[in-house]
Amino acid sequence: MARKLRQRLRDYGITIGLTETGEQNSITDVPGVSVGHETLIDGAGKLVPGQGPVRTGVTVILPHEGNVYEEKLRAGVDVQNGAGELTGSLQIMEWGVLETPIALTNTLNVGLVHDGIVDHMLKENKEVGDRDEVFLPVVGECDDSYLNDIRGRHVKLEHVLKGIKAASRKVAEGSVGAGTGMSALGFKAGVGTASRKLTEDLGQYILGALVVANFGTDHDLRVDGVPVGRELQKDEGNPSNDGSIITVIATNAPANSAQLRRLAGRVSLALGRVGSISSNSSGDIAIAFSNAERIRAREASLSQTATELSPKLLNALFRATIEATEEAILNSIFASETMKGRDDNVSPGLPIDVTLEIMKKHGKL
Amino acid sequence: MARKLRQRLRDYGITIGLTETGEQNSITDVPGVSVGHETLIDGAGKLVPGQGPVRTGVTVILPHEGNVYEEKLRAGVDVQNGAGELTGSLQIMEWGVLETPIALTNTLNVGLVHDGIVDHMLKENKEVGDRDEVFLPVVGECDDSYLNDIRGRHVKLEHVLKGIKAASRKVAEGSVGAGTGMSALGFKAGVGTASRKLTEDLGQYILGALVVANFGTDHDLRVDGVPVGRELQKDEGNPSNDGSIITVIATNAPANSAQLRRLAGRVSLALGRVGSISSNSSGDIAIAFSNAERIRAREASLSQTATELSPKLLNALFRATIEATEEAILNSIFASETMKGRDDNVSPGLPIDVTLEIMKKHGKL
Amino acid sequence: MARKLRQRLRDYGITIGLTETGEQNSITDVPGVSVGHETLIDGAGKLVPGQGPVRTGVTVILPHEGNVYEEKLRAGVDVQNGAGELTGSLQIMEWGVLETPIALTNTLNVGLVHDGIVDHMLKENKEVGDRDEVFLPVVGECDDSYLNDIRGRHVKLEHVLKGIKAASRKVAEGSVGAGTGMSALGFKAGVGTASRKLTEDLGQYILGALVVANFGTDHDLRVDGVPVGRELQKDEGNPSNDGSIITVIATNAPANSAQLRRLAGRVSLALGRVGSISSNSSGDIAIAFSNAERIRAREASLSQTATELSPKLLNALFRATIEATEEAILNSIFASETMKGRDDNVSPGLPIDVTLEIMKKHGKL
Amino acid sequence: MARKLRQRLRDYGITIGLTETGEQNSITDVPGVSVGHETLIDGAGKLVPGQGPVRTGVTVILPHEGNVYEEKLRAGVDVQNGAGELTGSLQIMEWGVLETPIALTNTLNVGLVHDGIVDHMLKENKEVGDRDEVFLPVVGECDDSYLNDIRGRHVKLEHVLKGIKAASRKVAEGSVGAGTGMSALGFKAGVGTASRKLTEDLGQYILGALVVANFGTDHDLRVDGVPVGRELQKDEGNPSNDGSIITVIATNAPANSAQLRRLAGRVSLALGRVGSISSNSSGDIAIAFSNAERIRAREASLSQTATELSPKLLNALFRATIEATEEAILNSIFASETMKGRDDNVSPGLPIDVTLEIMKKHGKL
Repeated sequence: MARKLRQRLRDYGITIGLTETGEQNSITDVPGVSVGHETLIDGAGKLVPGQGPVRTGVTVILPHEGNVYEEKLRAGVDVQNGAGELTGSLQIMEWGVLETPIALTNTLNVGLVHDGIVDHMLKENKEVGDRDEVFLPVVGECDDSYLNDIRGRHVKLEHVLKGIKAASRKVAEGSVGAGTGMSALGFKAGVGTASRKLTEDLGQYILGALVVANFGTDHDLRVDGVPVGRELQKDEGNPSNDGSIITVIATNAPANSAQLRRLAGRVSLALGRVGSISSNSSGDIAIAFSNAERIRAREASLSQTATELSPKLLNALFRATIEATEEAILNSIFASETMKGRDDNVSPGLPIDVTLEIMKKHGKL
Repeated sequence: MARKLRQRLRDYGITIGLTETGEQNSITDVPGVSVGHETLIDGAGKLVPGQGPVRTGVTVILPHEGNVYEEKLRAGVDVQNGAGELTGSLQIMEWGVLETPIALTNTLNVGLVHDGIVDHMLKENKEVGDRDEVFLPVVGECDDSYLNDIRGRHVKLEHVLKGIKAASRKVAEGSVGAGTGMSALGFKAGVGTASRKLTEDLGQYILGALVVANFGTDHDLRVDGVPVGRELQKDEGNPSNDGSIITVIATNAPANSAQLRRLAGRVSLALGRVGSISSNSSGDIAIAFSNAERIRAREASLSQTATELSPKLLNALFRATIEATEEAILNSIFASETMKGRDDNVSPGLPIDVTLEIMKKHGKL
Repeated sequence: MARKLRQRLRDYGITIGLTETGEQNSITDVPGVSVGHETLIDGAGKLVPGQGPVRTGVTVILPHEGNVYEEKLRAGVDVQNGAGELTGSLQIMEWGVLETPIALTNTLNVGLVHDGIVDHMLKENKEVGDRDEVFLPVVGECDDSYLNDIRGRHVKLEHVLKGIKAASRKVAEGSVGAGTGMSALGFKAGVGTASRKLTEDLGQYILGALVVANFGTDHDLRVDGVPVGRELQKDEGNPSNDGSIITVIATNAPANSAQLRRLAGRVSLALGRVGSISSNSSGDIAIAFSNAERIRAREASLSQTATELSPKLLNALFRATIEATEEAILNSIFASETMKGRDDNVSPGLPIDVTLEIMKKHGKL
Repeated sequence: MARKLRQRLRDYGITIGLTETGEQNSITDVPGVSVGHETLIDGAGKLVPGQGPVRTGVTVILPHEGNVYEEKLRAGVDVQNGAGELTGSLQIMEWGVLETPIALTNTLNVGLVHDGIVDHMLKENKEVGDRDEVFLPVVGECDDSYLNDIRGRHVKLEHVLKGIKAASRKVAEGSVGAGTGMSALGFKAGVGTASRKLTEDLGQYILGALVVANFGTDHDLRVDGVPVGRELQKDEGNPSNDGSIITVIATNAPANSAQLRRLAGRVSLALGRVGSISSNSSGDIAIAFSNAERIRAREASLSQTATELSPKLLNALFRATIEATEEAILNSIFASETMKGRDDNVSPGLPIDVTLEIMKKHGKL
C-alpha cells in the first residue's frame, strides 16, 4: 500500500533544471549501460555482530554490453572529499581508462566485493595473468552501519556475481543493492538515478547519473532549492549522518579522459544544491565514463585517435551532470520507505505529503 | 538616487543559511583583515584599445595588521575549474603558507599588479634579495573585457599601492576595485562579502568571504534557492558570460594548511547554490587563510606546533564557508547598478523590485 | 649454500649516500614499527590457473605497537605513476591519517587481503560498526604473474592474520611475503629495506623505507650510479617488466601530514637513481607515516596541536628518504636468488660476483 | 680564452643514456621551436638595491613558428615541489592547452615579464579583449639574488620583446638569458638544453629539454652517476643553494595533454640522477608541450580529434625526457664560467679538468 505512494520526483511534478531527460530518466538511457542490484535484508532487532540484522547489498554498473576488459573505456575521477574508498581510482586518474565493471557496497565489504569482481573478470578473460595484463577493479562504498550489521560483511562473492547477472536497463531505486541500508540528509535514501538528453544541435548525447546517497544532516535537505529539511525539522529523523555519496556518471558523448574528470568535478555543484556541506567524514567521490569509443586491449599501433569535445558541448554536459546528479539524489530519497534496522534504529522515509505541501508553499507545484 | 535603492541582500530580509553573521557581515569581521579598493572609471563609448573606456581596478586583501612577510600565515588553495590565474598558488599548495597580501584585478593586468605587490613588499622588507628570501605574490584575476578596455592595462603600480593604503575594515561592494567591470549570472556584479560567526560552544570563531564575481549565464541565478534568473529570463541581460570567480576565505580559527585547503574546497558547493555550472572558461579558484597563528620568517628551531581543528569544528567552518560565499556572491549582484562600458556594452543591474516580487511568490519574505 | 653468498648491499662495501644508517638498516629501526611476512611457495611447472604454481605472499607493516585504530597516525601518499592500487589512499590524501596496518600483496589478491585486514581490525576493535566509526584498510599491490599463478588468489584471510602475528623487528628481504614472486630491473627482487638516522643536531630522528620492488627493465639497473644493468646486458634476464613499486616510509620525526606527503614525494628521486623510467604500467606509489604523535579516535576537544618540522629538518629527511629508498631497492635485488615459477619462467638473481667486478671497474670498492 | 675551454658535456665524451640525440642536441631540434635570450650584465661590487650589480635576464621559448594564440598547442604541467612560480599553470592543468610563448626570468621580475608577454600577444592579436578571448601568459622563475640585484627588477618589457625577437634555433647555454645569475649543485649554472630522437620504428619523434638550473648543494652533483660533487667537496664553492629548476619539454610526438603531463612528471627522475633532493625551497616545476597538432582558437564544430600515443611510444618518450633533462642540466653547468656578482659573491664554474679526472677514475672516458 504505502509502496504505491512512493513515486519518482518527477511523477510529483517536480522537475530539476532545464535539460530534457532521457527516455527512462535513468543512467541506463546511455546505450549499453546496465545496472544490477543484489539486496540483502534479513533479521531484525538487536545487533549480533557477524549475524545481523542485515540491511545491505551490492550494486553493479556494467558500462557497455561487451567485455570491458577487452574493450576499455575512457573515464575520470573527481574527489570532492576523499573520506571514502573507490578502488582503482589512482589508475583511472593516471590512465583515464576504465577496464572493469563498477561495484558499490558497504565500507567493510569492499574487499569481498573486490574479490567478486576479480572472479567475474577472470572467468571472462582466460588469458589474464598468463598472456594478458592484470586489472584493477573499481569498487566504491558507503557506511550503512546505522541500520546494518556491517561487521558481518554479508555481501559475498556470489552476491557480486548475482548482481552482475541481474544487470538490466531497468534500475530499481531506494533501498536496493548498495543503497539498502543508506540514509541521506536525515531520511532513508539509497540508490537513485536520472538522465539528461542534449538537444539536436548538441548531438542528442545522453548523460546519466547513479548515486548511492548516504550523506548530510536532516535540516539541510533542499528539493529544487526549497529548504524542505529546515521546514520539516521538528519531525526530526535520525541523527546527523557523516556518511558518503558515490556518484557514477555515464555518457555516450565522446569525451576524452581529461574531460570526463571535469564532468565528475561538477557533481560537487549538485551536492551544494541538495544541501550537502561535504562534511569531514563524507566520501564524496565521483567517477565519469564515456562508452562512445572503445580502446582495444592489444592494439599494436603507435597511436590512436580520441575525440575531444568542444567547450560548448562540454558546458552542456556540465549542466546535464549537475541536473542529473541533483535529481538522482532526490530520487534516492523519494524512493525510500522508512526502514528499521539493527538495534531497531530507524531511518524515516521522507514524508511525501508534507514535502509536497512545503513545495506548494514555495511556489512549486 | 538610484543608489539609495541598492542595499545588501540581508537588508531586504533575505538570509542565507543557518549561521549567525559577524558584526559587519564582511570578511573584515575577521580581526586584522582589511580590504582596499582602487577603482578606475574613465571615458565612454567606442573602444579605443589602450585608451579606454576604462572600467576596472584592483582590490587588495591585507590578511593581518602586521608585515605578512615577517609573520606568515597558513593558507590553502582549491581549484574547482582552473581556467584562471592565481599567482603564488603552487607555493601555497606546497607549503601551505601565505606571505604577501592578496590582490585581485583584470586578466591582462596580472603582471603589473604583481609588480605592484613586489614593489610594496620590497619597501616593507629591506633585506629581501640580500639576507632574506624572496617571495611570491598572490594575484588573481577575472576578465572584464565586456565593459573595460582590457588591452589598456590601466591598473598601474601606483594603483596597487593606493589600494593597499586605502585598506580598511569597511568594504565597499559591487562595481568597485577589481569588481568594477565584472558581471555574474547575467547581471552587473563585482565585489561582494559576507561573514559567519560560530556559536560559543564552537569558539565563536569568525569566517569571512570576499568574492570578485564574473561568471555564469543569466537564467541560472538562484537567490536562496529561488530560480530568480529563470523567472526574469524575458528581460534578458547581457549575453552568457564565461568569466570567473575568485573567492578569498579568511578565518581566525586556527586551522592548519591542509584544513584551509579543505575549507577552500567548499566554495564549489556555494557556486552550485547560486546557479553556477562552473563553465569551461570559468576560473573558479578559492584561497583560504587563517590569521590565528603566525609563522616567523627566521625561526631557528627544528620544529614548531600548529593547531589542528576537530572534525566538529571543521564541519561548522565548512558550513560557514558555503553560507558566507553564497551571500557574498549575492551581495556582489545586489550592490551593482547597471553599468555602460566600452562600445556601449551594458551590464544590467539586477532589477531589485521584480526580484523581491519573485522571492515573495516563492514563500520567501 | 648459495644462500650464504647473498648478503645485503652494505655487506659488500657499497654504501648509498651520506647519511648514517639506523641500527639494523631497516624500517624497523623506527621505534614501534614491525613487519611480518607470510610467504607462499608451492608447486612447479605448467600453470594450472587457480592451482599453481604458487609464488606469492603478503607483507604487513604495523606502524606502532599499539592499536592503530585507537591511536591513529599522521600519513601522506604520493603517486609518481598511478598504474597501481593502494586502497585507502584517497582518505589519507584527505585526512592525512593512517588508521590501519599497511598490507602488500599481489594485484588480484587485494580484495582478500583487504578483507583480512578488516577481519583483524574488527577483532581488535569491538565497537566498530556499532558505536565507533568504520575504517578503510591500506592495501598495496604489485603484479607477480610472471612467476605466480596470480589467478589463484592464493593469499587468503588466514595468511593475512599469520603475517600480522609474525610481525617483528627482524625483516627478511628478497623473495619473501609480498615480494615472493616479484622482479625488478631485469632481476629477481622482492622486499627490501633500509634506514637512516639523522645527526644529533637534527634530533637523531630515524627514517626507514620498505619496498616491494617489481619494476623496470634489465639494462637500466644502476648500483650507486654505476650502470650495472648496461654492462650485464648480454646475459639478459627476463623480458622487460612493466610492474610496479610500492614504497613505505616510516619515521619518528614528528612531521605533519602535508610534510609526510612531501617525504613520500621524494621516492621518485630514488627511483631515478636506480634506473627507473617510471614506465606507463608501473604503479609507483609511496606512503609515508610518522609514529611520533598519536591521534586519539574519540578526542572531544575542539582542537589539538601537531608538530611541524622546520625546512632544515625536512631537507635532512628528504635526503634520508631518497637514500633509504635507493638502498632498500638495491637490497631487494641483492637479497634475491634466482627463482623458477609458473611455466618454468625464470627470474634470474643478480650475479653478485660480476656485479662487484663492475663496481670495482667504476672506482667503487 | 677561458671560453674556449667550455664545451658541452658530450664534447668531452660523456654521454647520458641510451637514446640518440637530435641534430643539435637542443630543444630546437623539435621542428618549429625557437629560443631567445636577453642577457643583462652590468656593474660590479657592492649591492645598491635597485641599481645593481645586474646579473639577470629573460629567456623565451616560442613553441612553433606561427601565432600560438591562433594555433594553440596541447601541454601539461608537473610540480615535483611547488616552491616556485609558473604562471598559467592552473589553466594548463585544467585545459591542457598552451596559448602563449613560455618566458623564464628571476623571481621578482615575473610581473614585468608577464606584462611583456601580454604586450607581445596583444600586438599579434588585435581582436583579443574585443571579439576574442583573453589569455594567460606562462612565466616561470628562479631566484638569482646570490649574484644579482634582484630588487631592481632589471628585466623590463622591452627586454621581453627583444628576447622574443632574438629567438632562433641556435640556443646559447650557461650564463645567458634567465640563466645569467643562476647556480646549481654548488657551481655556476644557468640555461642548458639537450634532445633525443626516437628510432625509426618509434616514428623518429624528437623530444627536447631546456632548463634554467638553480638548485641543489655542491656535494650532491652527479655526472652520469659519478659523485663528482662529493669528490670535489674540498674545493667547496658557494653555500648551499635553495633555488629552483624550471624545465621545458618540447616534442613533435602527438601526445595528448594528459600524456604531456605524464612526460613532465618524468623530470623528477632526472633530478634524482644529477643529485637533487628536491629541497624545501626548490621550485621544481616542469611543463611539456607538443607542437604536432594545432587547436584552432575559433573552431566551430562540436568536437575534434586528438592523437593518443601507445604505451610503447610513451615509454620511449619517458626515457627521452629523463635523458634529455639530465643532459640539459649538466650542459647548463659545463657551459658556465665562474661569475662574480653583487657584493662580490662568487659562483664558481665547474673545474672541468678535475671533473674529467674524476670521471676517468670512475671508469668513464
